[in-house]
Amino acid sequence: MTSIFTKIIQRALPAHIVAEDEHHIAFLDIRPITLGHTLVVPKQATDVFFELEDAALSSLMLFAKKVAKALQQTIPCLRVGVAVVGLEVPHAHLHLVPLNGPHDIDFKATKLTLPEEALQKTATQIRAAVVL
Amino acid sequence: MTSIFTKIIQRALPAHIVAEDEHHIAFLDIRPITLGHTLVVPKQATDVFFELEDAALSSLMLFAKKVAKALQQTIPCLRVGVAVVGLEVPHAHLHLVPLNGPHDIDFKATKLTLPEEALQKTATQIRAAVVL
Repeated sequence: MTSIFTKIIQRALPAHIVAEDEHHIAFLDIRPITLGHTLVVPKQATDVFFELEDAALSSLMLFAKKVAKALQQTIPCLRVGVAVVGLEVPHAHLHLVPLNGPHDIDFKATKLTLPEEALQKTATQIRAAVVL
Repeated sequence: MTSIFTKIIQRALPAHIVAEDEHHIAFLDIRPITLGHTLVVPKQATDVFFELEDAALSSLMLFAKKVAKALQQTIPCLRVGVAVVGLEVPHAHLHLVPLNGPHDIDFKATKLTLPEEALQKTATQIRAAVVL
């Protein structure tokens, strides 16, 4: 079955894309934990994160590093955290979460509800700061 | 200042080490979120995870993948999750957290208190399953 992420990659579903190259895409999480919460996804769908081939895992992390640097520049935060859970969408991905405290990675927390314009503005700022 | 992780690497502090190579070490978190919660640490101390050089970041992830596979084999769990927070110890590291639900990565949760023998047994099992 085509994952929701593959639909975003194919532009069959909308998303606030902040970075994209041949093998990866990054877009804002629509249910963000913190402002700027971004998903980083390899275009080739693999279910389990640690079953990515070595080269794919390395290149995903180097792409994520570039997105994280852009987040660090544009979103007020102490650090950009990382989480991989992988129990909900069967397409390996990584969460980049701007953190202002050690407990900010909390998937139980109430998600932010941001107006469309705020998401759009955030995505535009991050996209402008990404250096691929 | 020498980080607590460097002290573990230098064997100046005890830890339940589950894997080690020339550039990385992995050991059980002493305040685990879930059974088998493991820290993966580059031996060279860099404060910020995404400031690791590209080669160091890639090789850390490939080492973590090997440890994650051993965790998946030895700890009853659905997936092995990943978290990077980095606000408490100024030495980049990655948490590998065996997950049984989407909310198991929760640094606010009460940490497990495991008897020394249980930690030792868990570490021995993981170590035996690691293929470097």
